[in-house]
Amino acid sequence: SRSIDLAVIPGDGIGQEVVAEGLKVLSAVLPQDVKLETKEFDFGARRYHATGETLTDADLDALKRHDAILLGAIGDPSVPSGVLERGFLLKLRFAFDHHVNLRPSKLLPGVATPLAGQPEIDFVVVREGTEGPYTGNGGTIRKGTPHEVATEVSVNTAFGVERVVRDAFARAQARPRKKLTLVHKNNVLTFAGHLWTNVFNKVAEEYPDVTTDYIHVDAATIYLVTDPARFDVIVTDNLFGDIITDLAAAVSGGIGVAASGNINPGREFPSMFEPVHGSAPDIAGQGKADPTATVLSVALLLRHLGHDAEAARIEDAVSADLAERGGLPARSTSEIGDALAARVAG
Amino acid sequence: SRSIDLAVIPGDGIGQEVVAEGLKVLSAVLPQDVKLETKEFDFGARRYHATGETLTDADLDALKRHDAILLGAIGDPSVPSGVLERGFLLKLRFAFDHHVNLRPSKLLPGVATPLAGQPEIDFVVVREGTEGPYTGNGGTIRKGTPHEVATEVSVNTAFGVERVVRDAFARAQARPRKKLTLVHKNNVLTFAGHLWTNVFNKVAEEYPDVTTDYIHVDAATIYLVTDPARFDVIVTDNLFGDIITDLAAAVSGGIGVAASGNINPGREFPSMFEPVHGSAPDIAGQGKADPTATVLSVALLLRHLGHDAEAARIEDAVSADLAERGGLPARSTSEIGDALAARVAG
Ligand SMILES: CC(C)[C@H](C(=O)O)[C@@H](O)C(=O)O
Ligand SMILES: CC(C)[C@H](C(=O)O)[C@@H](O)C(=O)O
Repeated sequence: SRSIDLAVIPGDGIGQEVVAEGLKVLSAVLPQDVKLETKEFDFGARRYHATGETLTDADLDALKRHDAILLGAIGDPSVPSGVLERGFLLKLRFAFDHHVNLRPSKLLPGVATPLAGQPEIDFVVVREGTEGPYTGNGGTIRKGTPHEVATEVSVNTAFGVERVVRDAFARAQARPRKKLTLVHKNNVLTFAGHLWTNVFNKVAEEYPDVTTDYIHVDAATIYLVTDPARFDVIVTDNLFGDIITDLAAAVSGGIGVAASGNINPGREFPSMFEPVHGSAPDIAGQGKADPTATVLSVALLLRHLGHDAEAARIEDAVSADLAERGGLPARSTSEIGDALAARVAG
Repeated sequence: SRSIDLAVIPGDGIGQEVVAEGLKVLSAVLPQDVKLETKEFDFGARRYHATGETLTDADLDALKRHDAILLGAIGDPSVPSGVLERGFLLKLRFAFDHHVNLRPSKLLPGVATPLAGQPEIDFVVVREGTEGPYTGNGGTIRKGTPHEVATEVSVNTAFGVERVVRDAFARAQARPRKKLTLVHKNNVLTFAGHLWTNVFNKVAEEYPDVTTDYIHVDAATIYLVTDPARFDVIVTDNLFGDIITDLAAAVSGGIGVAASGNINPGREFPSMFEPVHGSAPDIAGQGKADPTATVLSVALLLRHLGHDAEAARIEDAVSADLAERGGLPARSTSEIGDALAARVAG
């Protein structure tokens, strides 16, 4: 489409700073005839402290009218753990049915990895976003007593598993290596494990050109540090995806460069794009945060909206910038944003 | 005590080979006046194929009479995923109330790590062993249909959490750094997360000399590859413990050297000691498997039974052997066992 109507949620901590640079690069990359409109929303810790609200029905209605959402980061130590996570981040993922949580991991030239020997890393994790142990099912009895029992229920449906598995097969088929790995723990979580494994094997029959394999989540963490090159596309459950994508980000250059999309592939609701990192209150307001992960999230956003050429321009600019970075003096958040904006515009 | 009555379960694949070396080193390290008796049990894939049994009530009765159990590895591709895991390994952990799953991670001199720059690694994970998503709670409806729903229920009790948290605090207090980290995901799994966090904070008051902190499981995987030195003792849930201990093993020299104990601290039932690695059917029978993890598991076993000096002798022998290993030609399973036996005897 020739216009983009974007909801912008800077959020907390470094969220403000990195989103500003994301928008700078977005404006720079878009052709003249694509009209960009943005509307800022004030969700996060400040709003919560001022009003007690995290995300109301009216908020959801307002967000729904936009083409996509760009989020900085949500979370602050002043808010009890879980309030903003469950009340904002997860509420939004569930309300807008963001069932494909897309997290690419690519070790770009010039980027430092904690792994010895600069291995090749170029894979994508397709994490389920609306089921598993993230549904909020469960409860507590006898709270605070020596007889307290707390449960968490992982809910998995054939519908929910199949749609994300199909999405992952399609992504694997579109990549040169055409390989898809299912990560689960089907030897222990046998109910959910059988569902995931059966659906995966059934859908695999429709993709004879995609090579498949299966790895337990514990073993997957080993391969991520000893042989990350074995992965091309990974599909996994919401919680396992949460865990392995942080590890994947760490080995492929750190959360400073890890982008993600919370995607509703059918576009019934706007998808949301955000860096994998959090609000990092310890460095907030100092112009130190690396906006690269947010800029790469903008690229995912553009690709989702069909602006593939612009997405590629951003990714190329980031690659070029990172390749040079070792030779550059330390730069501020906005200096990195400026450099990337100049590259995509040029 | 001046005698050890050991149940030995070689199991499948390389289990046979590595257990033989573990016993060799155990015999070599024990003083003349400690009588070692061993009884071998045939659990695993062969028994399952021959009889359909994994672990019967009579088996449990027989095992119960021993002081401790040494296990090689259980599992074979010929057995459907989950059958031996749930039917043997987990059944035993639950039947013998192995609520402390102890997994030390120490990067020994001379050992290769996938991490750049040989960081310092010396921590212990205390993984809960009888609760969380491992209880087998959950189920499936409409199996095999497009409307299948599968659930997994994580069960957490104040009783179960408190005893493992207490064990971890005691272990942290006994170490020089006296630091304990709780790993959970309390911002999403808020029911279980609150229980774990509250119990942890309550017990912490009794250990004012132990420094505590909290890290989400996803972030913990990042620190394990970027800053493993920050960890001293970690206490965590059954599933998170499963995942992070495989990663911990990978970064601290690989599963070839990772030992573990499934411990019943009150000794109501025999505890079981086993290498973290699996049965590795691809290299079974070739004399290639590294028995070091099993030998280190024997050290944990000895310490559990109060033979601290002998445990330390084994650990020293392993350290010395590993430090030399780079300079040694590749050795077979039994050559490594012989070398370690000679060191502990000498
Ligand atoms: C903040 C938290 C709710 C979230 C998650 O667990 O999904 C985060 O860790 C992520 O990966 O986006
Ligand atoms: C084999 C499996 C049941 C087991 C577990 O998940 O606990 C293993 O991975 C381990 O860590 O001991």
